[in-house]
Amino acid sequence: MARINGERLLADLRELASIGAYQTGVDRVALSPQDVAARRWLVDKLRRAGLDASMDRVGNVLGRAPTTKAILIGSHTDTVPKGGWLDGALGVGYALEIARSVVESGERTAGVDVISFEDEEGTYLPFLGSRTFFSDIAEQEIAAARSKDGGSLTSALQTIAGEPAPHRFDGKRQFCYLEAHIEQGPRMEAAGNRIGVVPALVGIRRYRIRSHGAANHAGTTPMSMRRDAGAALIDLGAKLNGEFQRLADRDTVWNFGNMVFHPGAANVVPGEGEMLLEFRDISGDVLDRFEAALQRLVADANRGPATVEVETTARIPPTALTEDLGEAIAAAARAHGEEPVRLPSGAGHDVMVVARHMPAAMLFVPSIGGISHDVRENTSDADIVFGCEVLADAVARICAQA
Amino acid sequence: MARINGERLLADLRELASIGAYQTGVDRVALSPQDVAARRWLVDKLRRAGLDASMDRVGNVLGRAPTTKAILIGSHTDTVPKGGWLDGALGVGYALEIARSVVESGERTAGVDVISFEDEEGTYLPFLGSRTFFSDIAEQEIAAARSKDGGSLTSALQTIAGEPAPHRFDGKRQFCYLEAHIEQGPRMEAAGNRIGVVPALVGIRRYRIRSHGAANHAGTTPMSMRRDAGAALIDLGAKLNGEFQRLADRDTVWNFGNMVFHPGAANVVPGEGEMLLEFRDISGDVLDRFEAALQRLVADANRGPATVEVETTARIPPTALTEDLGEAIAAAARAHGEEPVRLPSGAGHDVMVVARHMPAAMLFVPSIGGISHDVRENTSDADIVFGCEVLADAVARICAQA
Repeated sequence: MARINGERLLADLRELASIGAYQTGVDRVALSPQDVAARRWLVDKLRRAGLDASMDRVGNVLGRAPTTKAILIGSHTDTVPKGGWLDGALGVGYALEIARSVVESGERTAGVDVISFEDEEGTYLPFLGSRTFFSDIAEQEIAAARSKDGGSLTSALQTIAGEPAPHRFDGKRQFCYLEAHIEQGPRMEAAGNRIGVVPALVGIRRYRIRSHGAANHAGTTPMSMRRDAGAALIDLGAKLNGEFQRLADRDTVWNFGNMVFHPGAANVVPGEGEMLLEFRDISGDVLDRFEAALQRLVADANRGPATVEVETTARIPPTALTEDLGEAIAAAARAHGEEPVRLPSGAGHDVMVVARHMPAAMLFVPSIGGISHDVRENTSDADIVFGCEVLADAVARICAQA
Repeated sequence: MARINGERLLADLRELASIGAYQTGVDRVALSPQDVAARRWLVDKLRRAGLDASMDRVGNVLGRAPTTKAILIGSHTDTVPKGGWLDGALGVGYALEIARSVVESGERTAGVDVISFEDEEGTYLPFLGSRTFFSDIAEQEIAAARSKDGGSLTSALQTIAGEPAPHRFDGKRQFCYLEAHIEQGPRMEAAGNRIGVVPALVGIRRYRIRSHGAANHAGTTPMSMRRDAGAALIDLGAKLNGEFQRLADRDTVWNFGNMVFHPGAANVVPGEGEMLLEFRDISGDVLDRFEAALQRLVADANRGPATVEVETTARIPPTALTEDLGEAIAAAARAHGEEPVRLPSGAGHDVMVVARHMPAAMLFVPSIGGISHDVRENTSDADIVFGCEVLADAVARICAQA
């Protein structure tokens, strides 16, 4: 088994964090000069490690090991604005270090190909890189994609238009995918877990719930003559919350992320209201139960004086990962004296795209304070190195079985 | 009894509405050129009617009848921005028409003094005019008052600084106050009432309710580890609503006028929330009951994971009006074949200030569709004239008893 070098891993991650450094974090949004510089840095690192590496014209960096077969390992090096230093970077850093260690070990059969997918964070188009790698994207989508600031993806891609044609998945060579990531939640830290094995990524359903009533003077309009769009949403929200508590599985989560009333003055009965709702679970059945409850309670609300309508704004199915690969990670953790925790991923990752095309697994390391997408995002050095040791061990176990 | 001239009343109201006309309504905010022009128009009308009239240096217009005693009748001629043609103007138009009719009748003992108070709508300082008339205002309040746009009251008053010293209440002469107003609500129209007698104006309590939790990723933070500032307000709002329904008297009203979550994204657990609440009733006991329920339920909420705090932003006591005067209006309505409805005022009016200093009563006429503070605000011509006839009759009854 190749032995990873923890000091070298940490040094690489710190060097990468210096590209686009912002306070204690990183601002390296997709296709920004900082993002492209980080990708060129990675190409250079991979080549020095003995891989055949390049950045393609969508920004994906692929490094191919000098072997006939390969486990594909990676994540992304783009970040959210004013983000943290480990979200994405950790998984790419692990891939680099393990690939390098395998080359150093002299292995010539099954090695590690390294990938950093472009725009995982969706600055222009979520999963642009992973979807392109699997030819799972339409030209029209790329043509239509714009950032929040209105910049077009097409024009952002101009800066790297001279790079080679997109790297594509090579099913004869790359036989499985592994992605390591920070948990981005508080559970592992709270429970004292150092290794999480992700059996599945949650499905997400998101809704915009709008209520329509009549704005009226809140002093002169009797309660019985109101069509209060605000009270309708408060009542609906409270009832949904009660029903969701009853219907939830152990890991189901839901959120009323925003609520807005118009016109929004103390002395005016709200004439319009809007509420954002999402819920997540690894079981499509649970998502269906929640959606049925939403439809039922909205129908009830429509028997009141205000009208309520629901628009579905996102519908992402759950993604199950490959059990055998997860078992290899779990066995590696146990071999290192750590009992791993099975933890569904509540956030989205490139592995959701990858798992549609090849066997895939995911490893989590703890997030200090559960914080991510923030400059305070962090994981202890010891946990960072330990996660890489476990993943390297898992790679050895998978290659041994392959 | 002096007979009023309905055609003349309507013509005056239409002429007044042409000053600052905006679409089908009026934009004549306090101390604007349009407001001052309307007040000069009123002074001219009052003088032609045989009253001793002037505008003072806070904008109050007072017309004194050629009699030894007087009933003071009036309202205000300033409006909200883009407001209606009758809010305030109706009561001043009635006062003008009744005062003129009494002069025409040759009455020399008890007449009608007419007043248009400045800034009832609170562009700079609510009830500036009525509070000044009763010497019920501090210089510091005037010095500190600013409009929403930041304009100071002091500088707005500069344009009329050359006018006479403020008119003051003359307790030896003015023995009671009557104010007519549109209902500004839908109840009279819905019930087919043409005359409302106002026994009291509601007290108002207003609160800003803030919740504090922790903003977290809504996918990766388990429900049990959240401090959800949004869910705390939804739950509190629903519980308050249930409790208020139980505690309310017949005319109690309450309103959740606004709700805001921060940061306000579908996939982020709200870290901060804010909700505006007000309730109104003519009984201080009811207001106390509601406030006690608020305190109790907020204390309950604070046993949950988010914290909730309540700031009282307004506390206006109920105003009882003079029963005998209301009875005179009721008797006048019945003499005109109309059974009046007793209707608390859910909105504030100058009479709230006046009633602290002298006997006072208030008459309502219906608002079409309950609409006010809007260019669509209206009352049928027949109802406008009928209200003035009833008020003139009431004036005769009050003078006969005085």
